[in-house]
Amino acid sequence: MTVILGIDPGSRKTGYGLVQRYGTKSRYIASGVIRISAEFTLPERLKEIFSAVSEIITQYQPDEMAVEQVFMAKSAGSALKLGQARGAAIVAGVSRNLEVFEYEARKVKQSVVGSGAADKVQVQHMVKTLLQLPRAPQEDAADALAVALCHANTQHNLIHMTQTRHFRRGRLV
Amino acid sequence: MTVILGIDPGSRKTGYGLVQRYGTKSRYIASGVIRISAEFTLPERLKEIFSAVSEIITQYQPDEMAVEQVFMAKSAGSALKLGQARGAAIVAGVSRNLEVFEYEARKVKQSVVGSGAADKVQVQHMVKTLLQLPRAPQEDAADALAVALCHANTQHNLIHMTQTRHFRRGRLV
Repeated sequence: MTVILGIDPGSRKTGYGLVQRYGTKSRYIASGVIRISAEFTLPERLKEIFSAVSEIITQYQPDEMAVEQVFMAKSAGSALKLGQARGAAIVAGVSRNLEVFEYEARKVKQSVVGSGAADKVQVQHMVKTLLQLPRAPQEDAADALAVALCHANTQHNLIHMTQTRHFRRGRLV
Repeated sequence: MTVILGIDPGSRKTGYGLVQRYGTKSRYIASGVIRISAEFTLPERLKEIFSAVSEIITQYQPDEMAVEQVFMAKSAGSALKLGQARGAAIVAGVSRNLEVFEYEARKVKQSVVGSGAADKVQVQHMVKTLLQLPRAPQEDAADALAVALCHANTQHNLIHMTQTRHFRRGRLV
């Protein structure tokens, strides 16, 4: 059983979602949004993200962390802000010796919705369905749960592939 | 006496410089460059920056931290990389309860060289002269020392202004 922390970082809102993978299945543990006041200075905002993610790690003791990979941003200004928030969130994980995995947005959507071009509402809907939640999570929390689910599926497939290969090897010997 | 840690963050090289401010003067303590292997994954690189800056803080026990403010980057891609490195470095400071100050590049150059349009060689030269170093520090280390010196000068001026105001008030009463 592996507990996965998914993070969707942002300079104003950082979504988080925790799922537990057991065998081929994933179970919902918790999710939410870290909201940062616009009145804070940049160092204060980054401290808030780092502290909040650190507290989540202390509370839920995840084994692995997954974050959406970013290639493109609207502008250099927004890329810098997003980068700083990502840096603070990822450091909260690695400073606690969590292994951090990155997944392309297309890969996350493909894994959860079945299409790399899915929109946010579809992601929210599928996260709700896959994790059997009473209602769709808030947008950033849903994105965080989606990247955690993507990691859970990927790890499951990797284990499955390894086992198949071992089995084949066994037959060859 | 205040020890100031200046940081010039980058995704491949992060410069650091420590100066001690006493009265109107600044004394050199240490400087250097944290070099990150290109073979590392992004989370590994951010962990390296965070760990190295944390170690410097443990070793030299600075009171305050100063970082150059960034408004513009060449592209969204480089802004994201720089942002992540900045986030990791700043979090190393704020997670140790250091107050972090940001200064515009123009302000740093104005403070150290006397011109906001100074180039890197001029900054290196003036850092060497002001801190009475036997030779000019490496480029990123010089930039880190420059932002530390800029903070030292700014704080000195703030204290001076406050004292002047108190004196004037005293005469008015």
